[in-house]
Amino acid sequence: MMTRDNNHKILDCTIRDGGLVNNWDFSVKMVQDMYAGLSEAGVEYMEVGYKNSAKLLKGADAGPWRFLNEDFLKEVIKTKTDTKLSALVDIGRVDENDILPREQSFLDMIRVATYIKDVDKALELVDKFHGYGYETSINIMALSHVMENELAEALEEIAKSPVDVVYVVDSYGSMDYSDIDYLVAKFQRLLPEKRLGVHMHNNMQLAFANTLMAARKGVEFLDASVYGMGRAAGNCTTELLLSNLKNPKYDVRPVLDLIERHLVPTREKVEWGYNIPYMIAGALNEHPRAAMALRASQDKDKYVEFYDKLTSPEAMPTNHHSD
Amino acid sequence: MMTRDNNHKILDCTIRDGGLVNNWDFSVKMVQDMYAGLSEAGVEYMEVGYKNSAKLLKGADAGPWRFLNEDFLKEVIKTKTDTKLSALVDIGRVDENDILPREQSFLDMIRVATYIKDVDKALELVDKFHGYGYETSINIMALSHVMENELAEALEEIAKSPVDVVYVVDSYGSMDYSDIDYLVAKFQRLLPEKRLGVHMHNNMQLAFANTLMAARKGVEFLDASVYGMGRAAGNCTTELLLSNLKNPKYDVRPVLDLIERHLVPTREKVEWGYNIPYMIAGALNEHPRAAMALRASQDKDKYVEFYDKLTSPEAMPTNHHSD
Repeated sequence: MMTRDNNHKILDCTIRDGGLVNNWDFSVKMVQDMYAGLSEAGVEYMEVGYKNSAKLLKGADAGPWRFLNEDFLKEVIKTKTDTKLSALVDIGRVDENDILPREQSFLDMIRVATYIKDVDKALELVDKFHGYGYETSINIMALSHVMENELAEALEEIAKSPVDVVYVVDSYGSMDYSDIDYLVAKFQRLLPEKRLGVHMHNNMQLAFANTLMAARKGVEFLDASVYGMGRAAGNCTTELLLSNLKNPKYDVRPVLDLIERHLVPTREKVEWGYNIPYMIAGALNEHPRAAMALRASQDKDKYVEFYDKLTSPEAMPTNHHSD
Repeated sequence: MMTRDNNHKILDCTIRDGGLVNNWDFSVKMVQDMYAGLSEAGVEYMEVGYKNSAKLLKGADAGPWRFLNEDFLKEVIKTKTDTKLSALVDIGRVDENDILPREQSFLDMIRVATYIKDVDKALELVDKFHGYGYETSINIMALSHVMENELAEALEEIAKSPVDVVYVVDSYGSMDYSDIDYLVAKFQRLLPEKRLGVHMHNNMQLAFANTLMAARKGVEFLDASVYGMGRAAGNCTTELLLSNLKNPKYDVRPVLDLIERHLVPTREKVEWGYNIPYMIAGALNEHPRAAMALRASQDKDKYVEFYDKLTSPEAMPTNHHSD
């Protein structure tokens, strides 16, 4: 069944979330092709990277898409299309002095990723970026580890802020369509004035199904990445959304071309997508950190050993760090 | 969210459906390990192959799991566990004389795959197998290409037959949870006395989500395969079902061991699972035949060309052949 247009916006985060896989080692040519291809496909937003501060992330050696510089961005993109540009910032990692007023920037939207405990800090940032003229979002990570009372309190604060979009983020890829159904209904009830978004991970092969469920419930912002490129099990794929959302302006063909020319070669060098350690982490509702470490080691296919470690009574609970 | 026990039965069809990928080239050791592992995991049924006739499929050169021989099966399996054994037959490809009465066989269940136009022939076979004492199912393929009136008529016939289980089969991997919701409700309404089953394909990464939806609606038989091994985009994975269905007897660990020892090495030799040509076929509601031919050719990653071919006004409609 196709999903009727509900004023959906696809936000492609291949360069930002995919950068977590290849340390933002994307060529200028690839990013230019991505912008052209996503524009042609009718995708409404492209997230070109993180707007974090290289100074605050000392010694971080990463590609330019991790620390977006406005001059560099203008050199790469050259001419804006109808596809807007967004960047993500993390609490404590962004230097507010790096942010230009919107009219001097190529960015249209700044999204703030936060754990529930830092929602106040996130809203302070949102206030600033909003004052600069940007569209803003607050992306609440790791919702599957948040207690109801804490969430209700946070949403109450958020309802009072100028933020445009509030995201449901399934950081651990542990949710299914019933969970999305439940959370979206709750967000709709507690945030009647806000636009909503979803960002899903594919640990249990549910990212697309969950995004569909959200779209059909009226969630407007749908995060996706081309060929699913993103940390660990990756994201809902842009090509599946383009194939399913009924909107005459959407065309999957330019994205197939991007996959053929850029994503397949990239996938030969670095890994993302469904595999057993990520599935185990998702099913156990855990951060994929341990699974990512396993995949980077010699023991990458020792699934039983990994499962025993994660399910043993002595297993350490996962800490919450943003990344 | 976990799925509460609803008297579910997992039917693992790795050897049967996966055989379509490697021409049933499974070692005896692997099939023995599969039976032991699935038994330990609490899986209720293992489909060990096709019970088609080598004579009727002239010149077919395939491993023994395509033409199950009872003596061979007994040699391999040696001792039955609580996990029942099933085999699939295709209309026109099974020699009824090959089928022993159940008490002389290691098989517990015979499933009949059919297109809607052959439902009458399928029910004749069901009658025979039922008379021999087997559990039976009828698996209606390609439901996404069936008109409502035709389906209603077929279900009326099926309701009168002794068949135990009636399957919703998403042959083209083109359905999503809303379609499953709709079809399962229809089957439940028109077949109130029958047990239901689902067999999903993963072209759009929806096999597990669709199976979950069916399970939560009370569908009892859930087809799956270890690591998703099955034709083209493959199936709902057994490991995901075992992780999600809430039943104290289920244990995913033995299946992780099977993946580590057998499926990962097999996957290095042959291909199945989500990729772009299968996604395109699924999104267009087409048989994966053309996509499988593409993947077997030098042009396997020429997605745009393939998409143009399938969407051109001159594109030939897909024929319906069982395989």
